[in-house]
Amino acid sequence: MRIPVPLAHANRLLNHGPTTLVSTAHAGRRNAMAAAWVMPLDFDPPKFAAVIAADTFTRELLLASGECVLHAPTAAMVDLTYALGSTSGRDGDKLARLQVATEPASLVTAPLLAGCAAWLECRRLPEPAIEERYDLFVLECVAAWADDACWARGDWQFADASRRTIHHRKGGLFFATGESLAAKR
Amino acid sequence: MRIPVPLAHANRLLNHGPTTLVSTAHAGRRNAMAAAWVMPLDFDPPKFAAVIAADTFTRELLLASGECVLHAPTAAMVDLTYALGSTSGRDGDKLARLQVATEPASLVTAPLLAGCAAWLECRRLPEPAIEERYDLFVLECVAAWADDACWARGDWQFADASRRTIHHRKGGLFFATGESLAAKR
Repeated sequence: MRIPVPLAHANRLLNHGPTTLVSTAHAGRRNAMAAAWVMPLDFDPPKFAAVIAADTFTRELLLASGECVLHAPTAAMVDLTYALGSTSGRDGDKLARLQVATEPASLVTAPLLAGCAAWLECRRLPEPAIEERYDLFVLECVAAWADDACWARGDWQFADASRRTIHHRKGGLFFATGESLAAKR
Repeated sequence: MRIPVPLAHANRLLNHGPTTLVSTAHAGRRNAMAAAWVMPLDFDPPKFAAVIAADTFTRELLLASGECVLHAPTAAMVDLTYALGSTSGRDGDKLARLQVATEPASLVTAPLLAGCAAWLECRRLPEPAIEERYDLFVLECVAAWADDACWARGDWQFADASRRTIHHRKGGLFFATGESLAAKR
């Protein structure tokens, strides 16, 4: 079940460096792409940095709407993640073609993609210079959600292997998030 | 054994979102800190984005020297990673106090910390506006290395659990990099 995550904990949804899916929508069109180069940038209000290449339809919709949703897909979603990362939404609605169920977000028009481990509704903080120079976008998270099958008490609690988050290596190869380790205090 | 990684593959050392250690040196002083918010920004020449907080000694040495080394520490190094992330180098040489072996880098003055899975020698690309606003630094990687016990043929090849890379969750809690997954092409 999708449960709200306090904004002060939103960074923890992506602290461990999973690959993401980015959904966008504007004026009746919508899209989603895979983005491995996404990371937290600040705690509260939570900010994130995301690399969104210049020629993508996602970037067009993000610039037009000022909004997107970052998602942490699960191990069960590796094929979908690769498919979303290797086709363009300019050629038609990828989400319909790939039969991805969606539901409305709470504060942005971009859709929430079903089956993920985490969802972060974000607004773009315009930084035209670094967007142009590095394809780097700064996003403020305005609402965050996690799947209670893998998130509780402000931290990941992975049990089922198929619902672990995933980490991109290179073209279509990933790692699942692995075993838990605690440092000596 | 530490082996060179071609610059065109350097992004793959951090694509999967591991936590990092950042070493710096300037005018006879040196330091290292843990930094979880580090990611690739471009392929070739390889660039990386790193969040380095305003009050850190690492930032002072990075600004003074224009150089640093990003490292991917291993599961065997969680205690050291946490210790480097929770004490300041202003109070004395952390690397000496924590008995971290180092060796000279090839192109920068910052040291290479022994025992890591990967090393990326970097030069700062000055971006004062986003450094000030977001503590965000843009780094160009000028030389890259990996441990041949976990890297071969341009990709991670993890065998021994203690040499897997690690991913930060929150204060002292990590995940090891987990099982390999391949998407359907």
